[in-house]
Amino acid sequence: MSFDVTKTCRHSSARAAMLLTPHGAVPTPAFAPVGTQATVKTLTPDELSSLGATIVLSNTYHLYLRPGIEVIEALGGLHRFMGWPRPLLTDSGGYQVFSLAHLRRVSDDGVLFRSHIDGSEHFLTPELCIQLQQTIGADIIMALDECPAYGDDRDAVEQAMKRTHLWAERCRNTHHGESQDLYGIVQGGVFTELRRDSARALASMGFDGYAIGGLSLGEPKEMTNAIVEETVARLPEDRPRYLMGVGSPEDLFEGVSRGIDLFDSALPTRIARNGGLFTRRGRVIIKNACFKDRDEPIDHWCDCYTCQTFSAAYLHHLFKCEELLAYRLATVHNLRFVLRLMDEMRAHINQGTFPSFKESFLADYEPASEDIRRAQKDKWLKARDRKFKQAL
Amino acid sequence: MSFDVTKTCRHSSARAAMLLTPHGAVPTPAFAPVGTQATVKTLTPDELSSLGATIVLSNTYHLYLRPGIEVIEALGGLHRFMGWPRPLLTDSGGYQVFSLAHLRRVSDDGVLFRSHIDGSEHFLTPELCIQLQQTIGADIIMALDECPAYGDDRDAVEQAMKRTHLWAERCRNTHHGESQDLYGIVQGGVFTELRRDSARALASMGFDGYAIGGLSLGEPKEMTNAIVEETVARLPEDRPRYLMGVGSPEDLFEGVSRGIDLFDSALPTRIARNGGLFTRRGRVIIKNACFKDRDEPIDHWCDCYTCQTFSAAYLHHLFKCEELLAYRLATVHNLRFVLRLMDEMRAHINQGTFPSFKESFLADYEPASEDIRRAQKDKWLKARDRKFKQAL
Repeated sequence: MSFDVTKTCRHSSARAAMLLTPHGAVPTPAFAPVGTQATVKTLTPDELSSLGATIVLSNTYHLYLRPGIEVIEALGGLHRFMGWPRPLLTDSGGYQVFSLAHLRRVSDDGVLFRSHIDGSEHFLTPELCIQLQQTIGADIIMALDECPAYGDDRDAVEQAMKRTHLWAERCRNTHHGESQDLYGIVQGGVFTELRRDSARALASMGFDGYAIGGLSLGEPKEMTNAIVEETVARLPEDRPRYLMGVGSPEDLFEGVSRGIDLFDSALPTRIARNGGLFTRRGRVIIKNACFKDRDEPIDHWCDCYTCQTFSAAYLHHLFKCEELLAYRLATVHNLRFVLRLMDEMRAHINQGTFPSFKESFLADYEPASEDIRRAQKDKWLKARDRKFKQAL
Repeated sequence: MSFDVTKTCRHSSARAAMLLTPHGAVPTPAFAPVGTQATVKTLTPDELSSLGATIVLSNTYHLYLRPGIEVIEALGGLHRFMGWPRPLLTDSGGYQVFSLAHLRRVSDDGVLFRSHIDGSEHFLTPELCIQLQQTIGADIIMALDECPAYGDDRDAVEQAMKRTHLWAERCRNTHHGESQDLYGIVQGGVFTELRRDSARALASMGFDGYAIGGLSLGEPKEMTNAIVEETVARLPEDRPRYLMGVGSPEDLFEGVSRGIDLFDSALPTRIARNGGLFTRRGRVIIKNACFKDRDEPIDHWCDCYTCQTFSAAYLHHLFKCEELLAYRLATVHNLRFVLRLMDEMRAHINQGTFPSFKESFLADYEPASEDIRRAQKDKWLKARDRKFKQAL
């Protein structure tokens, strides 16, 4: 495993680097599509590769509950189980336990939670978290963190941060071997001082890479950007920096220009399945009547299979009919859009033209408003919670 | 358009032929996957080709209601709309109007029905049916028929048959041009004498091909086979024979050995989405616990992407999680299974070894029992009706 910065931007903190893993190279800045349950929804591994994905994220929490770690172990590890031979990253389950599971009790020892699927009780410790991820076998694994909600008060956030540091240390002590990199996760909510403390504390422990967790949870974008900036400034320059849960085109530009190397987010694939498609001018809603007979691709600029093959009218029709192909073609489009954007950002960093590329992209691209984003997220969260309640 | 029988079996009525259309060749016997709403559920046109599909069926009734024929016309016809440049077949809508729509009134003039989607009223005549199909632009189009249910009494079936003949004649008179073949549909339920009358009546009108409709609707298999045999014997030898709605492996063998050239059925794709997967030994239910950690493909014999790439355990996991990729991988498998079976049947007919191939396949293959088939069909029909009721 190695990480080499090959180029830094002269007018921003953007940088291009090469992250090497036992399963291949990840040129950064990179975006990791989310394959929560050992599948990036609707897509095959072959398609993911051809879309330009170099690394995929999966979720320890979900895999632990279903199919169960023993099944993945029996099937030869996650790479083989899901048919993805390239770099994999697993998150620790911290975020899911605190946002998805029914929490029972958190202490410095660990966290007792009930499964969102069947209500069964489980106790997750930092040590178990690392053991699970070692068995799953991803190239990059994450320390267990406590992720407070946006809006929690400073004392609660500070307590969660301190516990995150305690757990990070225990994760680091449990982790062994050379085949997996372990990243620590900076917490501290929207409190600049806590973020600085957290970055410094984790950096002093010496991780293979550093993630910034607990952002993009509803706070204003200016706040996200400011926190990222403060945090990055206190992380070692020679290690990868990973901004968790960020994946809209405009946010990727902001992260990259602040020195982030790696991103993951379910946003591009989730909004795709809801008919929200990226174009160079912004997000469009394909179900809108204006697309009913539009004899053009979603986005003329796009080189994806969907845009090269089908009209917007056809996609509109598939969405109206709730045809399964709709979700797949939309996912192909949005992922290709984001992955190609990352390719272009890397190329522009290497050519020394990143700031003008960013400026010209953002001049054309109208981001979804905060209101729309919040409304869509609420709708999705409600649908998800409804589904989970039905399951219990 | 042409149809040339290249080889006939000496020990059965099986035959191999070449059907040429303006969009390419269809070597027969052939199976047409069903793309009801201008998409074979979950699959792209590229995948369909690589699975070995040479012709796809779509539904006039569904396309007429959604997206509307005017949209398909504006987008350049169905081939271009759905991105499938090869042979297409549309059914007339007769079957759907009588099984799916809310019937209002049937007379010799035509049929007044209410859409299953929004309850809107529509009047379908034989002339309109042909005009719609000309606009859609498939290579093979079907005459409007009245399709009685299994269990209707002989008088009702005879009346529907007579109306089908009347409509067939009007369809033939409306149909013009050389770029589309028009097939008549034999009706007559399970009454041998009516079937003979119907085959003779349609043959005397002179169609480009002949379909056998109104079978596989719940009658015992021996009855289906006997009716097919009686009907085929009265159809012209030099024209294609198309058995509608038949697509299980064992039924395809029975149809081919009785001289059928073309089949369509939603069965392989529909049961795939419900986790029913074909193997050389019979249908398996992938959700069953025995597959939880099975480190083998669904079927060792299968050369499909799913079987070449994933374990049964992975498919089991995807189905348990209701992941969209499950439905796609299962569809790939079942369609490849059936399309490859057709390839093999053609090869064996050409080599003169069809009867022994049939015998050896059926010796290993245990068909789903009538009870299971009926239970699964009832379950599916109920789910469909529930969905449509919600929509109205």
